[in-house]
Amino acid sequence: MTETVESVLNDVIKHIRPDIDEREAVKALTELIIERVNSKAASMGINARAISVGSTARDTWLSGEADIDIFIMFPAEMSEHELKDKGLLLAKSVSDRYEERYASHPYIHAHFRYGGMEYGVDLVPCFAVKDATSLKSAVDRTPFHNEYVRKRLPGLEDEVRLLKQFLRCLGIYGSEQRRKGFSGYLCELLILKYRSFLELLNHAANWRYGERIDIEGHGQYRGDDPLIVIDPVDASRNVAAAVSPYSFCRLIDAAREFLASPAREFFLPKEAKTLSESEFRRILKDRGTYFIIIRFKAPDVVEDILYPQLRKAETSVRRLMERNDFVVYRSDVTVNGDNALLVFELLVWQLPGIKKHIGPPVTLRKHAEKFKSRHSPPFLIEDCRYVVEVKRRYTDVMSLLKTELRSCNLGKHLSKVVEESGYEVLTPEELQITPGISSFFRNYFGKS
Amino acid sequence: MTETVESVLNDVIKHIRPDIDEREAVKALTELIIERVNSKAASMGINARAISVGSTARDTWLSGEADIDIFIMFPAEMSEHELKDKGLLLAKSVSDRYEERYASHPYIHAHFRYGGMEYGVDLVPCFAVKDATSLKSAVDRTPFHNEYVRKRLPGLEDEVRLLKQFLRCLGIYGSEQRRKGFSGYLCELLILKYRSFLELLNHAANWRYGERIDIEGHGQYRGDDPLIVIDPVDASRNVAAAVSPYSFCRLIDAAREFLASPAREFFLPKEAKTLSESEFRRILKDRGTYFIIIRFKAPDVVEDILYPQLRKAETSVRRLMERNDFVVYRSDVTVNGDNALLVFELLVWQLPGIKKHIGPPVTLRKHAEKFKSRHSPPFLIEDCRYVVEVKRRYTDVMSLLKTELRSCNLGKHLSKVVEESGYEVLTPEELQITPGISSFFRNYFGKS
Repeated sequence: MTETVESVLNDVIKHIRPDIDEREAVKALTELIIERVNSKAASMGINARAISVGSTARDTWLSGEADIDIFIMFPAEMSEHELKDKGLLLAKSVSDRYEERYASHPYIHAHFRYGGMEYGVDLVPCFAVKDATSLKSAVDRTPFHNEYVRKRLPGLEDEVRLLKQFLRCLGIYGSEQRRKGFSGYLCELLILKYRSFLELLNHAANWRYGERIDIEGHGQYRGDDPLIVIDPVDASRNVAAAVSPYSFCRLIDAAREFLASPAREFFLPKEAKTLSESEFRRILKDRGTYFIIIRFKAPDVVEDILYPQLRKAETSVRRLMERNDFVVYRSDVTVNGDNALLVFELLVWQLPGIKKHIGPPVTLRKHAEKFKSRHSPPFLIEDCRYVVEVKRRYTDVMSLLKTELRSCNLGKHLSKVVEESGYEVLTPEELQITPGISSFFRNYFGKS
Repeated sequence: MTETVESVLNDVIKHIRPDIDEREAVKALTELIIERVNSKAASMGINARAISVGSTARDTWLSGEADIDIFIMFPAEMSEHELKDKGLLLAKSVSDRYEERYASHPYIHAHFRYGGMEYGVDLVPCFAVKDATSLKSAVDRTPFHNEYVRKRLPGLEDEVRLLKQFLRCLGIYGSEQRRKGFSGYLCELLILKYRSFLELLNHAANWRYGERIDIEGHGQYRGDDPLIVIDPVDASRNVAAAVSPYSFCRLIDAAREFLASPAREFFLPKEAKTLSESEFRRILKDRGTYFIIIRFKAPDVVEDILYPQLRKAETSVRRLMERNDFVVYRSDVTVNGDNALLVFELLVWQLPGIKKHIGPPVTLRKHAEKFKSRHSPPFLIEDCRYVVEVKRRYTDVMSLLKTELRSCNLGKHLSKVVEESGYEVLTPEELQITPGISSFFRNYFGKS
């Protein structure tokens, strides 16, 4: 029996809305950190001021998932060098446990224990610019987002939470390169636009490629992204630029499915599920395809750099196989512990020892003479071109990959890793089925 | 050591030019037949007149290959029905041994023994129209061709013979559908244009696709044929319309080869050469490909109808295989005795049991719902479309062909034959290597 949408959503909200204790702890910890930064700044004579931003500032975080974001705002006239020095100095002063991180910009990720819970806190120095279109660094826009949402969102926070949890269970929450999904700010804007989770789904179910949402009606962005959500604080920016065609379609599809039969299952994370080794082997046997896994040490770079490089390598290796007439059915990439894996599923992995080498048009005399002097007869003529039949260099895909992989464009970081520590070309039989690998393949096979 | 071009050509001419006895016999027989037709016409009160046309009329036939063409010209005012009745009546009256044939038009092919030799004679009724652009039937143009060439060719006959023999040895002499090569009339025009065989080769070696020759400078023909030779007696017609891209390129290539190293071998027919069965088997093994031969009874139609149908069937069967993801490397057709054969050489003839079925774009809601109601999950999303993985119906090409061949568009005649007497799908092991088959494969493999 299908439950009513309302009862499902009310039930889900109870689970994902932080309780009073969690909210008070987050609020108190946030204020404590801000106070520490500000008084440290005052004591050092630094003209800076900390503010709370992000989901904890807007009350849109999911229960148990609080990530506190503190921005430390410096005068716009300050040099970048000084901002970095003084900003990191202040940020490091609030906790003994921290690491320095880099996105477009250096920042500090600190760890706090508070009220018996562990919290991660990002402390990000930025410039207090006069408006969001006069940025000195990419993070300077964030305080404007914060202001915009804080003023308009109150009353709709739980709707944002529903959306975030829904997307999270679909695997498309977060704008990082690994997911190319919907960022937290984008979720808030979508709820500001449609006023409720359900109304968003009603619209999303009918979205077309290139769907355009412009709350302030000031958009100047032109691009062929699947979803365009004009930033209310910067008319030239698409907040949904990171949303991949896949993520876009996935939301559309799930919206229709949920509306057709609402259920709590849409809000339950699937990550824990894995395939047993015997299930995995059985599926491979049923498919009858040939899997090849290229494994190498994952280079020591952040995920947002790693994943685009893996995708690039995937395309490059796929093209190498296709150039050699092997037929790739599907492919994907994953990271498992210290290793990066490129996974290819083939329909054709062995070929006869002969191939056509296509020469120049017969009518181009100079090219024709050169070609004929370089090859042996017989010269066939097909589609007005010379063709010779030559020995195929690689009659099986394994020997191709073992010999030619280094000739692929693997990108800077992967090339270095492959040069330094090599790579392995494995069949699934040679692969240990860890929970990570199992979960990857579960997803690959589309098992729910 | 390379011989001089002149010595090669002089030597060849001696062999292909009819001797005095052959010439006199042909001349006498031709006059005899004309006389018989004309006096029969007179005695029956029919207003008709026979003329000699074609290579024997123009002295351009190859020694031992004389085909006598006699056209019986009727007044243009006569009805087609009357022309046919009276024309065939006259034609049949000159010999006891004849058969009725059809090209675009019915005619009589008669047999004569003369001076100890057998001759085939075509007797073709036509209308004596006032010019070549006011035809009542397709053959009415021929007398104009005859007049045009007879007036201009004298002195160049041996050059035409060299060209015909050269093309014949390349397998591209004759405009019939099986060859799609150069007709006799086209050979004569090319020699009229370039004045010698050698000069033609010098030009052909540099021909470009769409080469245009217009002796009278009056051409109105527009088309993307590889070679365009405007008919001197009909500005709207391309005499080379039947020349395929292959035949065009083959001449260009051979012209360059001959000019680079002239030799008698270019004028020696290759038809007699065959492959031994063991040679044939060894070549197949070396290639490592998979040959499939589809064999059926050749329908009882003239070659010019049969070959286009075989080519059409070849394309249709090839597409059937490609639609099912098998990879065809090369293909060809041949006729062997009573049988027609479609020959396919494959790179991929077995496939895994899974395939993608591509559905509608996710954004098209109605189509999406229909697709999802018809298929089972999981629904993958690729390039903004739904994709389901389904069982592949044919995992080997043999079972595909044995089951689905009848669904191909085989053309009227082949469909009828296949329906009435069926077809066989053979591997080379099941094929008897007759001289005809052997010669076909020798050519297919490009063995010289």
